Amino acid sequence: MRPDVHIALVHHPVLNKTGEIVATAVTNLDIHDNARSARTYGVASYHIVTPLDAQVELVSRILGHWRDGFGARRVPNRVDAMNLVCVSRTLEDAIAAIADGAGRRPFVVATAARRLPGSVTYAAMRDRMGREPGPFLIVFGTGYGLADSIVASADALLEPIGDPSDWNHLSVRAATAITLDRLLGERG
Amino acid sequence: MRPDVHIALVHHPVLNKTGEIVATAVTNLDIHDNARSARTYGVASYHIVTPLDAQVELVSRILGHWRDGFGARRVPNRVDAMNLVCVSRTLEDAIAAIADGAGRRPFVVATAARRLPGSVTYAAMRDRMGREPGPFLIVFGTGYGLADSIVASADALLEPIGDPSDWNHLSVRAATAITLDRLLGERG
Repeated sequence: MRPDVHIALVHHPVLNKTGEIVATAVTNLDIHDNARSARTYGVASYHIVTPLDAQVELVSRILGHWRDGFGARRVPNRVDAMNLVCVSRTLEDAIAAIADGAGRRPFVVATAARRLPGSVTYAAMRDRMGREPGPFLIVFGTGYGLADSIVASADALLEPIGDPSDWNHLSVRAATAITLDRLLGERG
Repeated sequence: MRPDVHIALVHHPVLNKTGEIVATAVTNLDIHDNARSARTYGVASYHIVTPLDAQVELVSRILGHWRDGFGARRVPNRVDAMNLVCVSRTLEDAIAAIADGAGRRPFVVATAARRLPGSVTYAAMRDRMGREPGPFLIVFGTGYGLADSIVASADALLEPIGDPSDWNHLSVRAATAITLDRLLGERG
């Protein structure tokens, strides 16, 4: 049985290059790529987190195009992926929505490209997802990564994917795909 | 010691939705995301394969911006990733360039999202890359996948990432990232 796993892509609060808290812009391809990765790995929902009215409106229009509009007719399989996408104004709203559906607050797993104290390995988290029913929420940051407040309030933090002492600047689309494969992919 | 691995992203000959051979357009984010994944996993070069003059010109301009232009000043770490990118008009040209550098023709590994006869597992290819010096060239297709002629002429074909009997429509950016992680990622 697959665990009940959800993902969130946070656009606020995240860090910019100089470590300040900012809100980043939602990117069309972040919606598509992560929705397709989520659908491939049996993820139950994909939350785009942005507090900005104009961005919420933009995401809603993109989703409409790919769920019911011309995009849905042109690429029918994309509907299945786009149906996983929700918009939330805060990460807490996304957590509440998942808790509403599951009857239980999700176990929140933060991610970071930098080495931070107390991180858990992919193998340990994969084991946990195989043993416990969930729900689990894996949280990814745009910009230069999740704000410390989100990492601190999460129930666990995953180790970095690459070697933080070497070049370690994966796109968030690549990091999401690799994380889902490591935690949920078939092992042959 | 890391094996000598190269990747190529083919825009012609690839399939469209109805199985015809087409040339797809190069996407800015395909250049960036795959260059960043390549750099993270120690890939030696990333070949964008397109026969179209206008596309070759476009890629060259994008590379200039990120290697020497404003992009390089704004995001200095991106230079290291973009320096891996080459443009080739055919896959055979990319193979020849790698052979020139290595003094030996690369072992060419095709990829496909559909189940095809004779594919090898990621574990087997990972083993091989650990034992043999290479060079290896992993070939990814845009559109609806590599033309049969490219798969047939390759030295090996990797198994699909997802379950081809289920929903299996990863973006090529996600597929490239997952493939590199499975073949070259650290195993903790």
